[in-house]
Amino acid sequence: MLSMAEDDSGAELTELVEANDLTGIRLWLAEHQPYEIADELERVSSHIALVPFRLLDKDRELEVFEELDPVHQQEILLGLRATAFHELLESMDPDDRARLIGEAPAKIATRALAGLSPAQRKMTAALLGYPEGSVGRYMTPETVILHRDLTVGRALEVVRAKGADAETVYTLPVVDDGRRLAGTVQLSDLVISDDDSLVKDIVDVLVPRVSATEPAEEAARLMQQANMVAMPVVDSEERFVGLLTFDDALELIEAADSEDIARQSGASPVAGHYVAAGVVRLARARSVWLLLLIVAATLTVNVMQGFEATLEQVTALALFVPMLTGTGGNVGSQSATAIVRALAVGEVRLRDLPKVAWKESRVGLLLGLMLAAIAMLIGTALVGAHIAVVVAASVIAICTWAAIIGSTMPLLARRVGVDPAVVSAPLVSTLVDATGLLIYFTVARLILGV
Amino acid sequence: MLSMAEDDSGAELTELVEANDLTGIRLWLAEHQPYEIADELERVSSHIALVPFRLLDKDRELEVFEELDPVHQQEILLGLRATAFHELLESMDPDDRARLIGEAPAKIATRALAGLSPAQRKMTAALLGYPEGSVGRYMTPETVILHRDLTVGRALEVVRAKGADAETVYTLPVVDDGRRLAGTVQLSDLVISDDDSLVKDIVDVLVPRVSATEPAEEAARLMQQANMVAMPVVDSEERFVGLLTFDDALELIEAADSEDIARQSGASPVAGHYVAAGVVRLARARSVWLLLLIVAATLTVNVMQGFEATLEQVTALALFVPMLTGTGGNVGSQSATAIVRALAVGEVRLRDLPKVAWKESRVGLLLGLMLAAIAMLIGTALVGAHIAVVVAASVIAICTWAAIIGSTMPLLARRVGVDPAVVSAPLVSTLVDATGLLIYFTVARLILGV
Repeated sequence: MLSMAEDDSGAELTELVEANDLTGIRLWLAEHQPYEIADELERVSSHIALVPFRLLDKDRELEVFEELDPVHQQEILLGLRATAFHELLESMDPDDRARLIGEAPAKIATRALAGLSPAQRKMTAALLGYPEGSVGRYMTPETVILHRDLTVGRALEVVRAKGADAETVYTLPVVDDGRRLAGTVQLSDLVISDDDSLVKDIVDVLVPRVSATEPAEEAARLMQQANMVAMPVVDSEERFVGLLTFDDALELIEAADSEDIARQSGASPVAGHYVAAGVVRLARARSVWLLLLIVAATLTVNVMQGFEATLEQVTALALFVPMLTGTGGNVGSQSATAIVRALAVGEVRLRDLPKVAWKESRVGLLLGLMLAAIAMLIGTALVGAHIAVVVAASVIAICTWAAIIGSTMPLLARRVGVDPAVVSAPLVSTLVDATGLLIYFTVARLILGV
Repeated sequence: MLSMAEDDSGAELTELVEANDLTGIRLWLAEHQPYEIADELERVSSHIALVPFRLLDKDRELEVFEELDPVHQQEILLGLRATAFHELLESMDPDDRARLIGEAPAKIATRALAGLSPAQRKMTAALLGYPEGSVGRYMTPETVILHRDLTVGRALEVVRAKGADAETVYTLPVVDDGRRLAGTVQLSDLVISDDDSLVKDIVDVLVPRVSATEPAEEAARLMQQANMVAMPVVDSEERFVGLLTFDDALELIEAADSEDIARQSGASPVAGHYVAAGVVRLARARSVWLLLLIVAATLTVNVMQGFEATLEQVTALALFVPMLTGTGGNVGSQSATAIVRALAVGEVRLRDLPKVAWKESRVGLLLGLMLAAIAMLIGTALVGAHIAVVVAASVIAICTWAAIIGSTMPLLARRVGVDPAVVSAPLVSTLVDATGLLIYFTVARLILGV
């Protein structure tokens, strides 16, 4: 039964290792699935993780290793003896190995490549030839390939002979003489069809395909839209070069979402498990934007200085500054978040910019009117109606403005070729802070005549 | 070839419909995949969408319909004549139909259930008996089931005879006499094995399984971790009741991520396509938190009022209020976002609370020290060192405090059974604003002696 309860296995494993209880560790390993073992190894420090890892038998060792994130894979590799190091790399799936080597520091990468058999080294080098983040880095090049002129019976024999692992034989690529992709057949279609019928009569020629150099994330989202277990990958001459499988697609989408979520808060994505990430690494990932933003916030100080005379005359105006900047920031962040997500999942496109700006400006206005009513009440109760009117009028203008800024900035980022997700909530808030204050004090001068 | 370029098909389809160009529409439909057609139908208004939808042949109509989100499905259904309405519902997959009916307004739901054949009605009612968001609502109940005593040859005959759609025959459930789940076999294992061997000798008995009443999102994340194409679902007596398939798992994870992302910005998730969502619906989804937060922001006004005397004496202190609240909000949001995500993907658990708080407080301190140096420079340049010291010291305290608040609140939410994602960036910012001002003015009084 799926255990969704909180459990203490991580602590338990550490205790077993520290007590040097090898029998206990073996028992613990036998009781857990590879992905569970990997999850626990990611939660403990690497000198602890190596002990149970070395006790795994070869097959499970590989399964556990492939479930680890790249940071932990590197740590484990560094702790292994030369023979174990090379055996493990040799037996990895080519796409997983290529990604590991592609992301590893040069000294691990060189040592890893040097130890591979010529055939595996060639395959890895080919995958590493594709750009980082492209489909080529994630596809499985070793698949069963069917020729379109085969009979179904013969095709099933090919599947049996190759005996590839289950992940890559649900969807079978069908090629013509020049290894050009004709389409795919599902293994189930082969099973259901007559042995004498021809592959070319059941091949799905309309199946979506993707070029190996295209971005892997977009290909994964296409697989999701089209409900595909695997998508064929072709080169520039339409020749079949590999399959992108659903598990890689799932991983790509999860990783992309994690990245977008981190970026939305103005942080760089941190690879690997949160629990295992060090304080300095976490701080570094968050520091770049914070530094830029505190410098940008100098603008707010400038605006406040520009209206220092007004502030000295009516000190009460200062009381509402955090409320106004906060509200503007919230409205802007909501718009930005909605548009960044809509862009990521393909609901909004570049050409929608005018439509989006017009819609968001009305959403902002509506929210502004509602919030202005509350601000009027709060303001009147705390400092009187004359200031409250200024605050309420500013809320309307700031909310409308914030929604326009928040929604158009991600689209403008995409237009100039920047990832829209860099238009984070903090970035929008900071920009809206400075411009919002300008609006507030201008409204105050107009209404109060100061 | 996968088209990643921006295209104008949405506008094109609208033009064809408005010109009443039926031949053009038929051609357009023939040139697009069902998921592409669904995507375009979601971008145009429902009276436009109905025209091409009615022109689809029965098979594609169903495929396109199943790709639509629930909001658009309901709109299309309302535009169909009674016969078409009932035929469409009758031919849907049971799990898709159950979710549609479960989410539809009562009048559609009643009409839909009444029109079903007795067999389909019974199956739909059974699925609707599971709680919303549970595995039972997403599983496929109609699958090929193998008895563990069958031979492989006989099992393949069963698969051939049932001829179910490909999505549900990659992974085949294996049961014993009482329909209790023994495990699963992969279709590829059947193909590769000898016809005379027994299913019970190749069944994977350790395969993860899930109860139909458990949360669907967690089950989907487990499938992702364990790289499963389908996961068997059982009832409380361990009897097989259905399969959760990878396409539903992908959809669940995407929807959960979209929800978390919306919540992080303090908005409720909006079902359906962004482009199709109306201004009022978008504003409503964002209004609840904005209202609560502007009321909570009254606290900031109270704090500012409490220090009005200090402000009147040293007006320059007011200048740095937006910079300080902004920076505190940014640091707090980053921590909250990181922890909410780590909780969602299972990297952090409830029992990690002390560890997380300790780690984040150090991250916050580190960031605070760095930002304080910048604040010191900016402050000295703009207003002189005496105020700059106050600002810099406050930045250190506020950043540390913000990181602690931001990281512990999602964990506390989970402890009291609330979705951690409600601890949004705006909520953290607002709380940090008020407490941050308290810190700032207290530091100012201590250092400046005012």
